[in-house]
This record gives sequence, structure tokens and C-alpha cells, in this order.
Amino acid sequence: MNFHTRKWVRPEDLNANGTLFGGSLLRWIDDEAVVYAMIQLGNQRIVTKYISEINFLASAVQGDIIEIGLQAVHFGRTSLTMRCEVRNILTEQIILSIDKIVFVGIGEDGRPKEHGYSTITYERDRFSDAMRRR
Amino acid sequence: MNFHTRKWVRPEDLNANGTLFGGSLLRWIDDEAVVYAMIQLGNQRIVTKYISEINFLASAVQGDIIEIGLQAVHFGRTSLTMRCEVRNILTEQIILSIDKIVFVGIGEDGRPKEHGYSTITYERDRFSDAMRRR
Amino acid sequence: MNFHTRKWVRPEDLNANGTLFGGSLLRWIDDEAVVYAMIQLGNQRIVTKYISEINFLASAVQGDIIEIGLQAVHFGRTSLTMRCEVRNILTEQIILSIDKIVFVGIGEDGRPKEHGYSTITYERDRFSDAMRRR
Amino acid sequence: MNFHTRKWVRPEDLNANGTLFGGSLLRWIDDEAVVYAMIQLGNQRIVTKYISEINFLASAVQGDIIEIGLQAVHFGRTSLTMRCEVRNILTEQIILSIDKIVFVGIGEDGRPKEHGYSTITYERDRFSDAMRRR
Amino acid sequence: MNFHTRKWVRPEDLNANGTLFGGSLLRWIDDEAVVYAMIQLGNQRIVTKYISEINFLASAVQGDIIEIGLQAVHFGRTSLTMRCEVRNILTEQIILSIDKIVFVGIGEDGRPKEHGYSTITYERDRFSDAMRRR
Amino acid sequence: MNFHTRKWVRPEDLNANGTLFGGSLLRWIDDEAVVYAMIQLGNQRIVTKYISEINFLASAVQGDIIEIGLQAVHFGRTSLTMRCEVRNILTEQIILSIDKIVFVGIGEDGRPKEHGYSTITYERDRFSDAMRRR
Repeated sequence: MNFHTRKWVRPEDLNANGTLFGGSLLRWIDDEAVVYAMIQLGNQRIVTKYISEINFLASAVQGDIIEIGLQAVHFGRTSLTMRCEVRNILTEQIILSIDKIVFVGIGEDGRPKEHGYSTITYERDRFSDAMRRR
Repeated sequence: MNFHTRKWVRPEDLNANGTLFGGSLLRWIDDEAVVYAMIQLGNQRIVTKYISEINFLASAVQGDIIEIGLQAVHFGRTSLTMRCEVRNILTEQIILSIDKIVFVGIGEDGRPKEHGYSTITYERDRFSDAMRRR
Repeated sequence: MNFHTRKWVRPEDLNANGTLFGGSLLRWIDDEAVVYAMIQLGNQRIVTKYISEINFLASAVQGDIIEIGLQAVHFGRTSLTMRCEVRNILTEQIILSIDKIVFVGIGEDGRPKEHGYSTITYERDRFSDAMRRR
Repeated sequence: MNFHTRKWVRPEDLNANGTLFGGSLLRWIDDEAVVYAMIQLGNQRIVTKYISEINFLASAVQGDIIEIGLQAVHFGRTSLTMRCEVRNILTEQIILSIDKIVFVGIGEDGRPKEHGYSTITYERDRFSDAMRRR
Repeated sequence: MNFHTRKWVRPEDLNANGTLFGGSLLRWIDDEAVVYAMIQLGNQRIVTKYISEINFLASAVQGDIIEIGLQAVHFGRTSLTMRCEVRNILTEQIILSIDKIVFVGIGEDGRPKEHGYSTITYERDRFSDAMRRR
Repeated sequence: MNFHTRKWVRPEDLNANGTLFGGSLLRWIDDEAVVYAMIQLGNQRIVTKYISEINFLASAVQGDIIEIGLQAVHFGRTSLTMRCEVRNILTEQIILSIDKIVFVGIGEDGRPKEHGYSTITYERDRFSDAMRRR
């Protein structure tokens, strides 16, 4: 699993009890995951289709640094499934984990589009290639 | 199911493809549901523990008005489980539904606290009573 | 008067003295009222024309839950007038009240448009009907 | 009247019809006026007490530059009354005007506090003096 | 140097250590300076080209009022160079200063456009004139 | 240089001309760099001291994916100097580069604190170690 994005929890991210606002966390995850899916599928027209159950195991407080990890786990015909884990960078305590976030790539006609990939890329060539061919 | 909060989709809520940003939607839901849980449990110290799988059935575009519906479905000893549905107010098309969002009420010692309730209140007396007893 | 939207006051809503920022409160009210007007007039092209005087009777602090109440009080030829009240959900203390917020529905030509209504709807059929006829 | 703050209308300031969101505008005004009141009264504990009726005369669109003008019009024993005008910087068209925004300075005991001033300052000495005496 | 915009540091502007978040401050400066450049060059198509080194001399905390000063220092053929200073309004302590922020005016073809000006305007006629001639 | 954070340019990140708002970009960079500095210095009390000149070489539009690269280039006694580059992930076009961003670690007494490091860590042990020793 790759941990890319790190967030330093600021006052604007807190709920009124002074802990990390769950809605902010879900927003950060979706933001990060959709970009990861675009790169993996070489397509900027990506929609979120499904998020499996979410267990909130721990919270975070102001000043904590958390990191969001993502891993591609399955390539469907038009979709990509990822696993996600959020943890405290210092204590390595897991804040939440999500087994499956499913994204679908869309064609210019607005319908799901076959992507033809089955493996993860760390190099980003795929993204550039697919985009440049347009 | 009660549909309380309505949102008019503005430019700041869109992703770069011009449709409703999934992260914004999840944030609105968490924001709304946690307040609903506070009222039902008469406790302002509420944490989100679990969200069951989320199917994104449709999206929304700028200018759409959507509404967020919530329904208490189960009272545990320290928890409350809700069902959630988001729909387009005009077409009544369902945008997403979530079977279970589980909240737990916390006591002053930071641990789950028995709430003693088993039914839904629409009147808010419970909230006021519980709070006023403090 | 119907109290629909509830807000839990979070750190990002505070001014530097630690009380609810008046500008945030005015923004919430306008956001809520314009959607209510759209539904009542069956028209998504709504502009705010007038807000009568606003008395700030009390404030709110972090963790307070407030609710925004709206009531249609007059239907003009092209306009709708609403009354608004904001209160603390726990103490029922009134935070502010506004006697008149006037909205006007606009036609495709950008000019005020007759709406033909004179009563409040709670059922939202009006909205759907008017929109579907387009 | 002094026109200090200028805003360039960006996509995040628009409502779903593509015109300036009224709630954003009210938030900008309150933000600006309260700082102006702090300087005039030499006190950082300022609360908004009253806003007189608001006529929305025109709107603004993306790319417009608007400016917010404020003028102290009356010094009460513990209060300050201002007049406000918002206009398009290019066309000088008035977007809205508010005759009276009343602020009250609060003492350390949380009660209205006499300020002893009766004239406007453009020099800011008052602010510094009052603050430095603390 | 003219000090126009004033900001009251609110909780949402703080980093997790409770001091003014540097990124918010840079955003405020860019926001303010680009509008000033539009007025000086009579052109709403302005891009930031260059910012000289920035020394952060002091910080600010919640409740501080800061002001942003800007001064046009050089008119190039298609560009405008400004100096910027941010200070605490009460203590007059300088928070940061920037010697040069360079903006370029762009024509309808997307290329730098000669502006023909060499002096500062405080009257804004230039802006209106240039815009009205279009 | 490590490219960690990726941003998908959404409507809320645009200026009124429809290109990436410079102030948003500067905010993202500061946000990212300060967390990187915290990890490198094993200290959560970090302040930005200096940013060298910034050349804006290109812009970005809605839907572009950009990435922010950071590289530690010098360890002083109490400071850390980084280089920063922002580029379009698809075209690899450089949007801006900054030669030096200097951060200083602060001790509990609010003064610069010796950190004792001279090399980059990719493993994060340093952060955890330093924090755990407290």
C-alpha cells in the first residue's frame, strides 16, 4: 500500500468536540482516491460507484498528522477497485480502513468504457500515453 | 424517513467533470446525521463508528436540489443506527442510499455511555431534557 | 414555522472571540431560504430582493446546535415573502429573527415572472409539476 | 464613505444560477464591518447587534470586481452605527446598501462598555492607544 | 504604501500550532494584489508572473488584526511590479514583506499586452476608461 | 525529488478568468511542505521562515491534475531547506519552481531548537523516534 497524501489536522478540520470531523476525512479520501484512479485508468472521466463498509477505529486531534494509503486490488472490465487505509503517521494507529472503493471510467458518450488494463502502474506512463493518444 | 436538509448544488460543490463531488456529498451526510444522532440520544458527545456500504446510483449537476433523508432504525445499548437516502428533489431519483450509519454516545470519561432509549423522538424533548439534567 | 436545517457550531464557524461568526449565520440563512423559495415557487431561477431588519438577540458558541426556521407569509404576483427565526435547539433561546425575506422568481428572459400561487405547499408537488412542464 | 475591500468574484462565490451568491456577499460585509468597528472603538470585543433593511438592487457575475464601502454615522454610549454600500467597481452600479449596522463593544465582564468616542478616526491611533493602555 | 485590506484572524485561519497558517496569508496577498493590478492596468486578464523572496519576520495569533499594504513600484511595457508589506495593525510589527510581485496583463489573444501606463492611479478612472473602451 | 501530493483542479480552485488561482497553489505548497519538514525534523512545532523567488512558468485549468514535488536540500543547525517543483502530471510541464523554502523547528520555549540531523529520511523512523522520546 502506498501512503501518499499527508494531512496535518488544523482547527478547520475539527468537529465541535475537538476531534477530527468524519465528513472532512471522507472528503479527503474521495479526493485522493479519484486522482489515483484517473492515473491507473488513464482517464480523467472517473466516477465513484461503490464504497464498502467503513469502520472508524480511532479518531485524531488537532496537530496530528495522518496519512492516506491506497492500493489497487482489482481491475474489472471498466472498473478499478482500491483498498484504503488511514493512519496516524506517528503512532501508526489505524484510523479507518475501507476494503473496496470502486471507480468506473466513462467514455465521451457518458457510458462505462473498457480500459484494457490489469496491473498497477507506479510510473504514470499509462496515464500520459492514454491521454496523449486522444 | 424524514427529509430535512436540502442542498442546492453550487459551483464549489462540483468536481472537475462538472458533476457533484462525491467527497462533498459524504461530508454533508455526516454533518446532518451526527446532529440527528445528538438529538435522538440527548448527548452532544457523539462519534461515528460505522458506515455500511454505499452505492452511488446517480449523480447531480449544478443547480440540482438534493435532499438528505435519515431514519433511526435501531437503538443499541450505547449506540444508534440510522438509514440514509439522498435524492434529487425534482426527479425523486435516488442518488445514494446507506443502510446503516452507527453512532455511539460518549460519557464525560470518554467511554461509550448507556442512553436508555429505544424509540425515535420527533419532538426534541428528549434532547432538551437530557441536556438540562446535566 | 418549520425548522428544517440544523447546524452544529464547529471551530470554522467562530469569529476570533470564540462566538458564532455573524457572517456565517447570514450565509446559512440565505442558503436555506433560497431553496425553500425555489420549492414554493416551482422555479429554480430565484433572486433575493429584500431582507428586513435583523436583530441579533443572542449568540452561540462551539458545540451549540442551532436550527433555522422559515415560514412563507405572503405571495405577491412574482414574489414570495418569508419570515425567519434562528434558535438554539436546546435552550430554545432565539438568536435572531427576520420578519421579511423577499424572493422573486425570474423567467427565461431574466425578468420577474408571475407564479400564480397563493398558498404554501408542504408536499413539493408544485415544484415537480412546474419543473416537469418545462 | 471609504471603499476599502475589493473582491473579484470567483467561481466559488457563485450560486447555481451563475450570479453572486447573496450569502457570500453578506458574509463579506459582516467580516469587513466588524474589523472597521474594532478600530473605531479601540476594542476587539465587538458584537453585531442590528442590521437595518437590505435592498438587493443588482447582482454581479464571475469576473466582476466589487467594493465594499463603510461609513461611521453615529456613536452611541456603547455602540457604533455604520452605513454600508456595495458597488461594482467598473460600472459604479450599486449592488446593495444598508443604512444601519450597529455594533456594540463589550468589556471583560461580557457587558456593553462605554467607549467615550464621538468622531471617526482615519488614523488608527485610537485603536492602538486603547489597546496599549490595557 | 496603501493599506487596504484588513483581516481579523479567525480559528479557520490557524495552523495546528495555533498561529496564522502561512498558506492562508499567501492566499490573501495574492487575492488582494491581483485586484490592485487589474485596476492599475485597466485589464481584468491579469496573471501573476513572479514573486521575489519572502521573509516571514513574525506570525500572528487568533484575534490579531493584520493589514496588507501594496505599492506599485514599476511599470514595464506589459507588466506591473508591486511591493507588499503585511503588518499587525495594533503593534505595527511587520509580519512579512515582499519586494516584487510582478503581474502581466494579457490580451484577448492570450498574449502579454502593452498597457501604455507609467504612473499609479488612485482614482480608478483608468480602470473604468480602459474597460469602457472595449 | 519526491512527488507526493496530487491535486485535481476543481471549480473552487479557479480565479475568475478560469485558470488556477495562484493563491490556492501557494496554499497547497505551504500545506504540503510544512508536513514534510515536520517529518524530516521530528518536530511538530515548525515555522516557515523564508521562501525564495517564485517564477510562475505556466498555469493550469479545470480538470488538470498537478503534482507537488519537494526535496530536502540543506540541513542547518535549527533549520531545513527544501526545493519545490509543481508540474502538470500529464504534460510534465513545470508550473512553478522554488529553490528554497526554509523551515525552522521550535522548542517548547518558543525558540529555534537544534535538530541534530543532516540527511533526508524516507522511512519516517526519525519522526516517530523523536516524537516518542518526548
